[in-house]
Amino acid sequence: MFDDAYYMRQALQEAQKAKEQDEVPVGCVVVSDGRIVAKSHNLTQTLNDVTAHAEMQAITAAANYLGGKYLRNCTMYITLEPCTMCAGALSWSQITRVVYGAQDPSRGYQNFGLSLHPKTTVQGGVLQEECSELLLDFFRSKR
Amino acid sequence: MFDDAYYMRQALQEAQKAKEQDEVPVGCVVVSDGRIVAKSHNLTQTLNDVTAHAEMQAITAAANYLGGKYLRNCTMYITLEPCTMCAGALSWSQITRVVYGAQDPSRGYQNFGLSLHPKTTVQGGVLQEECSELLLDFFRSKR
Repeated sequence: MFDDAYYMRQALQEAQKAKEQDEVPVGCVVVSDGRIVAKSHNLTQTLNDVTAHAEMQAITAAANYLGGKYLRNCTMYITLEPCTMCAGALSWSQITRVVYGAQDPSRGYQNFGLSLHPKTTVQGGVLQEECSELLLDFFRSKR
Repeated sequence: MFDDAYYMRQALQEAQKAKEQDEVPVGCVVVSDGRIVAKSHNLTQTLNDVTAHAEMQAITAAANYLGGKYLRNCTMYITLEPCTMCAGALSWSQITRVVYGAQDPSRGYQNFGLSLHPKTTVQGGVLQEECSELLLDFFRSKR
């Protein structure tokens, strides 16, 4: 039951909260030893801060909770492929695993030829349709 | 008098504060209409947070001060070339100009083939020797 899809559903709930605040709907959770140690969603509009992506907040919160700045033995579940800023932050964190839902072909870090820390494994496409649909609905509603 | 070297000296003073806190000595200031609207220095160890680079804090602080998330008509002076995380954040901010001191040939964003926002102009090498020397002294003292 506590599989990748389970945790991605928690990240989707966070993304839904972002949508309700009229933020681009991206959410994430950080899991350590099977427990969620941080949850967050995009808050760039609300906080007036381009750095307030879901991942950035979750890295800070998880490190604070765990008492160390490196997120070893942690997995981050994100509804969207990270951008270059968030990929850079994830690299510094030396996180063990990153799982994302939707691809971001233009602004995702992979489009810029970047990779995460050598110790980090990455998996994309978990609940991809749900994650993409939430984003597409949001952008369609803005046109 | 209020030239690039002047503002870089303010950034160097910030870097010096980082050094006094046993942090990797990187500092920065953000200037808007000739006034310094944000100052910060690296706090990753103190805050136990890999995202607490000088630039990230300064972007948040400047946006907060200016009341808008985009740093148009702003220049950031940083003692070291930004990493990929900070370059990503600077890109999102659409900052007008970035001036840095020392090159970072391994972890600087240019080593990864990244560039900042198309609207952003970049100049490196301002007070390069002073900026580099502060970093080299710090790392030598750690060996």
